Amino acid sequence: SSKIGRSAVIVHKGEHRHFMAKEIHEQPKVVEQTLTQYIDCRKATIRLPKNVDLDFRKIDRVSITACGTAFYAGMIARYWFERYAGLPVELDIASEFRYRDVPFGAGNLAIFVSQSGETADTLASLEFAASHGQRVLSVVNVQTSTMARASQIVLPTLAGPEIGVASTKAFTCQLATLACIAIAAGRDRGVLHAEDERSLVRALGDIPRHMMRALELEPKIRQLARKISPARDALFIGRGTNYPLALEGALKLKEITYIHAEGYAAGELKHGPIALVDKDLPVIVIAPHDATFEKTMSNMQEVIARGGRIILLTDQRGAGLAADGAWSVLELPDMPQIVTPLVFAVPLQLLAYHTAVVRGTDVDQPRNLAKSVTVE
Amino acid sequence: SSKIGRSAVIVHKGEHRHFMAKEIHEQPKVVEQTLTQYIDCRKATIRLPKNVDLDFRKIDRVSITACGTAFYAGMIARYWFERYAGLPVELDIASEFRYRDVPFGAGNLAIFVSQSGETADTLASLEFAASHGQRVLSVVNVQTSTMARASQIVLPTLAGPEIGVASTKAFTCQLATLACIAIAAGRDRGVLHAEDERSLVRALGDIPRHMMRALELEPKIRQLARKISPARDALFIGRGTNYPLALEGALKLKEITYIHAEGYAAGELKHGPIALVDKDLPVIVIAPHDATFEKTMSNMQEVIARGGRIILLTDQRGAGLAADGAWSVLELPDMPQIVTPLVFAVPLQLLAYHTAVVRGTDVDQPRNLAKSVTVE
Repeated sequence: SSKIGRSAVIVHKGEHRHFMAKEIHEQPKVVEQTLTQYIDCRKATIRLPKNVDLDFRKIDRVSITACGTAFYAGMIARYWFERYAGLPVELDIASEFRYRDVPFGAGNLAIFVSQSGETADTLASLEFAASHGQRVLSVVNVQTSTMARASQIVLPTLAGPEIGVASTKAFTCQLATLACIAIAAGRDRGVLHAEDERSLVRALGDIPRHMMRALELEPKIRQLARKISPARDALFIGRGTNYPLALEGALKLKEITYIHAEGYAAGELKHGPIALVDKDLPVIVIAPHDATFEKTMSNMQEVIARGGRIILLTDQRGAGLAADGAWSVLELPDMPQIVTPLVFAVPLQLLAYHTAVVRGTDVDQPRNLAKSVTVE
Repeated sequence: SSKIGRSAVIVHKGEHRHFMAKEIHEQPKVVEQTLTQYIDCRKATIRLPKNVDLDFRKIDRVSITACGTAFYAGMIARYWFERYAGLPVELDIASEFRYRDVPFGAGNLAIFVSQSGETADTLASLEFAASHGQRVLSVVNVQTSTMARASQIVLPTLAGPEIGVASTKAFTCQLATLACIAIAAGRDRGVLHAEDERSLVRALGDIPRHMMRALELEPKIRQLARKISPARDALFIGRGTNYPLALEGALKLKEITYIHAEGYAAGELKHGPIALVDKDLPVIVIAPHDATFEKTMSNMQEVIARGGRIILLTDQRGAGLAADGAWSVLELPDMPQIVTPLVFAVPLQLLAYHTAVVRGTDVDQPRNLAKSVTVE
């Protein structure tokens, strides 16, 4: 994009065939870089930068507005703000935000998320919220961007330049940053005790290690990609934070392989989309062993009973309990619930990437798409 | 479903080949029946039943929870509660509701929407909200249903028995009922003046007439269905209330034709799904001439520039301004903004219906689906 063209940084693919592959593999490193900004490793606490003037005790709601992949990051963060900080969250697609008559409240913190910081709809929403006196915080990857300059508070992601049009490392760094904000809010509001904070922060600190393990699935995913590459359609399902991750997994596949992938809340399958299921439809089930696991497995069984081909993405405990009947199982180590969205994103990105390579599409520059959408 | 089996009512298809066709055509009548319950026609005001004990001045938020088509009705109603009553709305897919740590507020009105009143996930959410002391209102089509019995307030839709698995008349009657609630809330909270209320209520009163005009599009839609029936995929796009309507239009097509249709907020197209666009992909653009019209037209032009085949569903003003380049235009009369979701639903239902007839699928009993989903 023009933003990258103007910068003096020259980015190489290194040993990788595509920028997207390189960026997927950089995630353990850049997520760690991003976390280091917001975490005191020694004390295992969140430490937002000193210039961040934000009293979470005076906030009674959060709104999160973004587009595309960044919107799905926001959707995941909604669960965190509710669970860890007891804060209700209003979530909006940026292109829709200004056309609703949103009742603005005084105690609202308006968060905007964008890789480039130039996304036209998100920027316009940010300016609209600021003009209504909202307190504006932006999570951006480009610290000199228009969104950063227009915000009262900027919490940058340190993903480094992202060249592939399909966002990967920016997404996981957005999640890491949003998790830190939610934990800080929970602590300051007295919802999280010191020990809760420490255990969540330690879990975040382990993300790079879990991501390394996730990257080890690559040979298996490369083989799987060959098998699903003839598909014309695919479904991704999950519950809880796995639902936005299903949307993101589907978006990745759609963007770079042109397979019509769609993400769905697993419980909604039987309200319509299960009609699509036949033996040619891969259904990717995202199900770590969490509180929603059993219900998702019952949805998975409904798909199997109708002849659908299941790719189950789960953890060790989940694989031990419910791999029967799945066409393929991608197994990750067990890990705390707060980190699953970041770690489970990696195999989904790899699946999209390798399927695109098999299909021979232009991975880094998919048809019809631009890296940074600067028109509304 | 078992519910229908137990009732003593025997329903015939009349002159129609399928229940779904009959139910689509019944809409002017059953929407009128439903409205008559909630409207004082002479004074052009909303008049909720006397036994409804509801003081909207004591409510400061609304939550709406439902599944499938009823969820999309709730999504549309969200715009109305915001615009006409200044009330923020929390919207939830029922199967997701209980797994989020939703902060329950004292001033919340919790609305649950279901045709059968037996939808397992919606019922479980209702019971969960009630057990947390929430004030519970349900909008159901079966007044003797479990949901109706478990609610403090029941506002029934009078759609009559709906036999086709793909919901049509229940959806528009849900919308009519939710519109009346939003207007009553706006009036009681002093957001709407007496004249605002009268003009909105008069607009609602005209819905049956507009629906009759929409049904006149049937011969044209029958021809169009023949042309799109070979498609494997389709996109539906819109902004504002046309966005949930795009989701509903896509769901209808998906349920009964097995074409993989997906609905999208028009502004999100360029953040991913536009990569799917080629000359074989029908893109249905829902765009009455409202505040979002111009922006939607610019999204439509992006699709046209990439070779996509557009079916534009608009009103007379919209057709006069922007039909150029569309592959087919379905034109409805101009009408007030509040009624477009109900009226524009009709051609979307007809399009799904006639495409299913051409494809020879089982319209009233699509594969893998049940009328009333009584498992989670």
